[in-house]
Parts: sequence; C-alpha cells; structure tokens
Amino acid sequence: MTTVKQIILCGFGNVGQAFARLIAGKQDDLAARYALDLRLKAVVDIGGAAVADEAGLPAGRMTDFVEAGGAVETFETYGRPGLKALDLLAGADGAILVETTPTNLKDAEPARTHFLAAIENGVDIIAANKGPLVRDYRRILDRAREKGVRIRFSAATAAALPTLDVGQLCTAGARIEAIEGILNGTTNYILTRMAQERVHYGDALRDAQALGIAETDPTLDVEGLDTRNKIVVIANTLFELALDPDEVETVGITGVTPADMAAAREAGQVIKLIGSARMTANGPVVKVAPEALPADHPLAGVHLSEKGISYATDTMGRITVTGGHSSPTGAAAAMLKDIIHMVKLGI
Amino acid sequence: MTTVKQIILCGFGNVGQAFARLIAGKQDDLAARYALDLRLKAVVDIGGAAVADEAGLPAGRMTDFVEAGGAVETFETYGRPGLKALDLLAGADGAILVETTPTNLKDAEPARTHFLAAIENGVDIIAANKGPLVRDYRRILDRAREKGVRIRFSAATAAALPTLDVGQLCTAGARIEAIEGILNGTTNYILTRMAQERVHYGDALRDAQALGIAETDPTLDVEGLDTRNKIVVIANTLFELALDPDEVETVGITGVTPADMAAAREAGQVIKLIGSARMTANGPVVKVAPEALPADHPLAGVHLSEKGISYATDTMGRITVTGGHSSPTGAAAAMLKDIIHMVKLGI
Repeated sequence: MTTVKQIILCGFGNVGQAFARLIAGKQDDLAARYALDLRLKAVVDIGGAAVADEAGLPAGRMTDFVEAGGAVETFETYGRPGLKALDLLAGADGAILVETTPTNLKDAEPARTHFLAAIENGVDIIAANKGPLVRDYRRILDRAREKGVRIRFSAATAAALPTLDVGQLCTAGARIEAIEGILNGTTNYILTRMAQERVHYGDALRDAQALGIAETDPTLDVEGLDTRNKIVVIANTLFELALDPDEVETVGITGVTPADMAAAREAGQVIKLIGSARMTANGPVVKVAPEALPADHPLAGVHLSEKGISYATDTMGRITVTGGHSSPTGAAAAMLKDIIHMVKLGI
Repeated sequence: MTTVKQIILCGFGNVGQAFARLIAGKQDDLAARYALDLRLKAVVDIGGAAVADEAGLPAGRMTDFVEAGGAVETFETYGRPGLKALDLLAGADGAILVETTPTNLKDAEPARTHFLAAIENGVDIIAANKGPLVRDYRRILDRAREKGVRIRFSAATAAALPTLDVGQLCTAGARIEAIEGILNGTTNYILTRMAQERVHYGDALRDAQALGIAETDPTLDVEGLDTRNKIVVIANTLFELALDPDEVETVGITGVTPADMAAAREAGQVIKLIGSARMTANGPVVKVAPEALPADHPLAGVHLSEKGISYATDTMGRITVTGGHSSPTGAAAAMLKDIIHMVKLGI
C-alpha cells in the first residue's frame, strides 16, 4: 500500500529547488521501489508561499519560474504573498517539514522557530539547515522525543556523504570508540593543492575562490567552524551529548605553512583538517585541527573537495566512508533518503 | 518495551563461537540501546545440539568447553546428541536462525536445507554462510517473501564491511549505476605485496600462506571465485537479478606478473582484483578481473587484507566504504547488526 506524505518545503534557494525537482523527477521510482507518494503541499520563501491546489503544485514549472527571477509568492494561481511557515505548520500534523532556509549560526533563525513549531504541531522534520542543531541540539531533540516527532538531518552533516547512517545503521550493535572526519570540501581542496603543487595557503585559497569552491569571505570554512559544527552535531547524535560548539577547541588551516607540508611529506604523511570525537575515561574529547595522517590512514587519500569519515569500533574494526556529492542535488538526495528512512524504517 | 528474540545458532566453528560470545557480552548494551533481549535457544553442530533450559544456555562456558575440544552435544546437561537443526526449526515460528555452518558451494548443504526449513516454519534468517545465496538466490528470496520471512546476509557479503547497507540504506532513493568492490582480503594482500615489494605472485602467495592469510589450497580466493560469489549476491540483491555465478566472467590474480605491476606503476595506476556490476541498456554486466585503477580511484588506497566497495549513483555521486574486520568477531558483529536491523527497522 502506498504511503502518501505531504511536504512543507521551507527555503527555496539552490537546495530547496534541487529538492523540488528531485521528488518530481523521482515520483515513479519512489512509487515503484518504496510505495511512497511525496506531495509538495507548500513552498515557503522570504516573501510568502506557494500552496498546492487539489492537483498539487507543479514543481518543475515553479522552479523554472523562480530560477528566471520570480518569487514563489507570485507564482501563477498558487502564490500567497505574506503567507508564513508558521501559518502552514499549524494543523499540519502528519506532514513533513523540509527545512532548507540559509543556515544562521548566530540565533539559528528562522529555522529554529520553524523546528519548534513543527514539533508542537506533530510535523516530522528533515533538515539541511544545521543552525538549530548546532545552537540548540539537546533542547530540540529532547522536545521532539517528548512529542513523538522525528528529526533527521543527513544533509546538515555533509550532504550525500552518509556520516550519520554509517554511525547509526551500518555499525548498529558495535560501540563507536572514535570518529575522525574530513567534513569540509573547501579546506580539503586548499590543503590538497598546497600538498600537491607546493603552493602557499594564500595562493591555494585564491585559486579556490576563483573556481567558486571557496567563498569571498572564507572564514567559516578556513577557520574550521564548518567542520566544528558538523562534528558537534555528529558527536551529539552518536554519543548522545549536549556539546556547545563554542567550547570545542577549533584550529583552522590558515596557519598551515609550506614548511609544515614539506615536513609531513618527508615523514610520509599528509596534512588534513580533521574533526574528531572520541570517548575517553574522562568523557568526550571533541576537536578540530590540522593533523598529519600517515599515508595508510583511510582518510589520507581523500583529496580536493571530497569528504570522508572514519569510525573506530569495538567489534567491527575501522569503517570509513568517503565521497558523496556536495552539490545542491547531493543535499536534496540526502533529504530524500532521510524521508525514505523515516517513512519506511520508522526512524 | 524490550523485544525478546530466540536464536537458533547453526554451526559452532569460529564464527558461531564468536557470535555466541558476542551476544552474551553485549547483553546489557543491547537492552539499554536497542531494548533487545537475544536468547540463545539452541546451538547445533555436526553431532547434535545444545538446548537452553529455562535459565538459558551459558554461552561463555559452552564456548570455552568447545574451544577446549568438547562437542556441543555433550555439553553439561544441555547437550542432545543427534538432535538436528530441522528438529529445532519445526515449530520455532518467530525465532531467528543464525546460519554459520561452513559454506559449501557445490550443493550449498546443509545450509540450504536449513534455510528452506526456516522459511516454511516462519523463522527469519541471518546468514554468514553464502552457499544457498550463491547457488539458489532467487528461489530462496522469492519463497521467503511469499512466506513473510526475512533474510539478511551482511556477514556473507564481506563481513563487517557494510556492502549491502551502503547499497540499500545509505543510498536509498538514489539509483545505483555501477558497483566496484575489492571483496577478498587474501588476493588484495597478495597484490599489495606484489606492488609494494615487487615480488612475484608465487612468493607473495607463499608469504600469505605462511601468515595464515591464504589457505593451503588458495583456489577459491586466487581464482576470483570468492569475489565472484560476493559480487553475485550483492548484484542479485541490489539490482534484483537472478544471476548464475557460473555465467559470470571471472579472472583471478594468478596471471598477474611483475611486468603488469611495473607497467601499472609507471602509468600511476595500481592493480586490484575488482568484482563489478553495472546496469547497461543491454542488461546487467557483472564480472571479476584484475583492473588497473588510477591513483585517485577511491579503492586505489585499499591495501593488504582490507576490503572496500564503491557505488556510483545518479544523485549522490560516488560513495565508497572501506574497512571492517574480516575476523570471526567482525562476521559475528555483522550478524548482530542484521538482527538489530531486522527487529528494530523491520527489514
């Protein structure tokens, strides 16, 4: 029997648009493989919303319209200027909120308000936005548990790289002793260029910016903050912690010199920006820092914009997963996967 | 609420013993993390069985007894000489069969008979034994589906390396376009030694045999048959095929020469034994052969006895997982994971 799920999509930037196109394009496949019928009930952006009629919301045409400069709230007969996420979440019990608004690491708004409204209204949450998870993890997860609402956030923890799946599903029954991750593609690109072409940090950064891999203000990436945010969410999830990201020792890559690179090379090592978490007798140790990995380390071969994460376990040994698109499509695919897990596996 | 599951363990060699010790050692952890209470109802080996009384079956003491040369059917008051798996499976509806008898690739017995009896009796199956899956995949899976019996077999498809989990769970919603795997630790060890130390195949094989990595008769590994069997089960599962392993083009590593290794090295490549499967317009193409991988291929850094598998998908890009213990404990941990997935996720 087919399960029908109504989707309220918040945020209609690159990731939101990719998600709308993805579920439209995969409709037949989802019906055949998973007996799943995902219906876009509404899309909310800054100026208002577009809301489905009985025949649904034409995702492809709406995405074309917005890509061409239109706003969702003025889209054909579906647009509702001024209509807000909270209006749509009220009474939406049983629907799924797909949260793709831009991540705000200061106060996590507007996603935090969306999360809390969804929880109070019995709406499950799929998040690409990591703001509320980084800033308010324990409170949100605990409240969701009380209300029987599920939250999954693969797309917020390295998109299509299945960081949490491997830590939760593939290693079920094993105890994770340590986690090491290359969780940021921009810094890994810069470090790879520095290692392979023996250029300075500043030159590699400029190249990355010219290619659109690094942003004009690269602080969040190069100071290790993005890596920190991801490892905090991963460690909070897998070790059931309530870490405050501001308390995590975080060193970025701006101080890595050609001399460091040369020394590592001579020692048969490679420098990577590692977000790590491990459980010790004195509690969890979580940090971010450039580390010189031996050549046979399973993350040593993760180059350029690729990412990877490695789990050391008690009974399964070490399991490492790498790859996964960092694109909007990759993030959208991670959210679709989360929906399938939520609906079909009950997690 | 805690779920209680009765386990009928068939085969009490290294993997069966590791499994018995594992579930005994993890008892508190399984209760706390998964609300799961696994009870060893019976252990069956060649000469008979040991059957639990009301207080259970003392797994640790029994494993010590067997390791010291005893037979399960003579263990204390629990032993039942001559009692067979079929006697125990009859009327065991709701229990789980854990199949760890030695793999027999000719007629797949006795595991095949155990599988079929379990299915008819409503007993779910967790398999380390790959015989029935290699020889009779479609018939067994189809019959299990008809009877509502679940079968999971992570341990038969590279033990603790989560080959099927990544292909089924981590990539849910994506379409797998191609699969490439290093699925046999012995051949990867030999090829790694040949590449790194520039020794001949025969010398590397002898070293592997001296270390206990290769068997006295290494045919199954070095002729690519073990890799073939695993890729056939993986492809049958993920692409819903009914491949006959005898029809899969299979080339092992016995013909790989130092000249091949040198040529690959000069081209910046590395030779690995790859089991691959991809869907084409003309149907599935599944084969096993030594392949020269470029240095930046995600499996190029998988060395010695390590294994790995890489999935190319439509929406998530390429996702690669490596590692996982190949030991009896690793296989036992994979079976425990399968039980958790079966009971908690309903798969």
